[in-house]
Amino acid sequence: MQIEFLGTGAGAPGKFRNVTSTALRLLDERNSVWLFDCGEATQHQILRTTLKPRKIDKIFITHLHGDHIFGLPGLLSSRSNQGGETPVTIYGPRGIKDFVTTSLRVSKTRLSYRLIFTELETEGLLFEDQKFSVFGYKLDHKIESWGYRVVERDHPGELMVDKLQAEHVPSGPIYGKLKAGEVVTLPDGRTINGQNYLGPTQKGRIVAVFGDTRMTKNSQKIAQNADVMVHESTFGKDEGKLARSYYHSTNLQAAKLAKESGVALLLLTHISARYTGKMAHQLESDAQRIFPNTRVVRDFDIIEIPFKK
Amino acid sequence: MQIEFLGTGAGAPGKFRNVTSTALRLLDERNSVWLFDCGEATQHQILRTTLKPRKIDKIFITHLHGDHIFGLPGLLSSRSNQGGETPVTIYGPRGIKDFVTTSLRVSKTRLSYRLIFTELETEGLLFEDQKFSVFGYKLDHKIESWGYRVVERDHPGELMVDKLQAEHVPSGPIYGKLKAGEVVTLPDGRTINGQNYLGPTQKGRIVAVFGDTRMTKNSQKIAQNADVMVHESTFGKDEGKLARSYYHSTNLQAAKLAKESGVALLLLTHISARYTGKMAHQLESDAQRIFPNTRVVRDFDIIEIPFKK
Ligand SMILES: [Zn+2]
Ligand SMILES: [Zn+2]
Repeated sequence: MQIEFLGTGAGAPGKFRNVTSTALRLLDERNSVWLFDCGEATQHQILRTTLKPRKIDKIFITHLHGDHIFGLPGLLSSRSNQGGETPVTIYGPRGIKDFVTTSLRVSKTRLSYRLIFTELETEGLLFEDQKFSVFGYKLDHKIESWGYRVVERDHPGELMVDKLQAEHVPSGPIYGKLKAGEVVTLPDGRTINGQNYLGPTQKGRIVAVFGDTRMTKNSQKIAQNADVMVHESTFGKDEGKLARSYYHSTNLQAAKLAKESGVALLLLTHISARYTGKMAHQLESDAQRIFPNTRVVRDFDIIEIPFKK
Repeated sequence: MQIEFLGTGAGAPGKFRNVTSTALRLLDERNSVWLFDCGEATQHQILRTTLKPRKIDKIFITHLHGDHIFGLPGLLSSRSNQGGETPVTIYGPRGIKDFVTTSLRVSKTRLSYRLIFTELETEGLLFEDQKFSVFGYKLDHKIESWGYRVVERDHPGELMVDKLQAEHVPSGPIYGKLKAGEVVTLPDGRTINGQNYLGPTQKGRIVAVFGDTRMTKNSQKIAQNADVMVHESTFGKDEGKLARSYYHSTNLQAAKLAKESGVALLLLTHISARYTGKMAHQLESDAQRIFPNTRVVRDFDIIEIPFKK
């Protein structure tokens, strides 16, 4: 599981940062990729990575500002041209369906796969399968904006095969039952409990991806105990007032949220073109004074999300 | 007057060619730029040129396929963010207004300038001012596609000041009348005709920009005597059948059209990603056997359009 940043800029494309798109690479976990936002030229950015558009099966849109959605029609079309056949589900505020379907209809684009829209209304659980749940909560931006919280299920502990063999438990279908934590009677009459032969449960990982927002009470709900929190940092440390009036956040606000929410790693994105080179570094080091494990990310950065120790 | 190619690829963005957009630079003539088509990431391409989005005041869309229009909402938004205040007129097939207005409405984008739509219905003259006329004619593509013919007005000849002075015609407001071709009575009683003191009329230039198309009877109407003809070349010399069934053209068909239409320079664009490096060169040299003054253009090529000698 990795996060790959396809666009880390704010508002408009610049020479060094494209507009927003963040990929959650779930290749090992489910052989797929989830996209969060899709600014213009996201498909162009993808051309410079190892990502395959046909593996993208969910796209979560945080809000409908152009720098977060104008790349959707092109990406969806190219996914079709490149032989994508599996369905894509798009989650986002009401209006996203109108934009995408109008774009495809006017351009006479016929996709080779099914497109499913889930326009967001109720906060909370949006999606769930055997491995992941995704929750959505409203933020506080100039227009409706959402944050997403991806929660991986805990991995049951590994079966302690060495211990079983040391106790002369014969291998076979019995091992499957033990791994499932069942109580089993052995051929020699012993009764043993699988729970006693399982290693520690591996906690699933939590990824929090925010849309553009001011600080709001829902922020902690999204961030709580996240292994990685991706948050905007449109403004710098002395710009709290500006941030508030433009419905955005500063680096320090994001760092404070990460600290208070027990986050493991904070990744700052949605960086204004005003912050180039050294100044972007300053955004980072200022935030680190509040929350040391902070990084200002750049386009094409890939961040591994490790399991909790 | 120059043509600057912002995207010269076909169908989908590739590593070497972006999707279609062609800029006609009229900076000396009217301090503005006209765009023909606007594929996704055209604004990104513009970032790498000296073009200023606020100088773009007309956008001509040839047809509504995504690789020709998906860059419009982003370009229009950025033009607004960058302080564009003068109106923009968009010409294109019916549907272009729906696409653009839906994109701007859903993304809550408020432009700082007026957007005017001219959805094309009748072939012929689309625009005319003191310096330029633009004509549009239908082509033959899978969906409605148009070609544009930009005609610069002839420049009246220069006043031959040396000749006037040699004949002791005193300078003053009289020179203005002579330059306008009027007959004038001099203080010494002589009557002279301005027409006899004007250099040769400089023929205005003609630029023909085609949309995706098969060869069709309107093609010559658009190309006739053009100083520069910009034509698609999606297919190569042995692919006439393919071109026909996909509603596109080959390099040889374009060259033949240029030859038969008395064109001065043929620029081939809309090059498939199948034609890389040497193969693109082959497209060019094959076409040159029919029409020697042919070039296969690349992204960021700038071609000067000289006056006829
Ligand atoms: Zn934004
Ligand atoms: Zn095309």
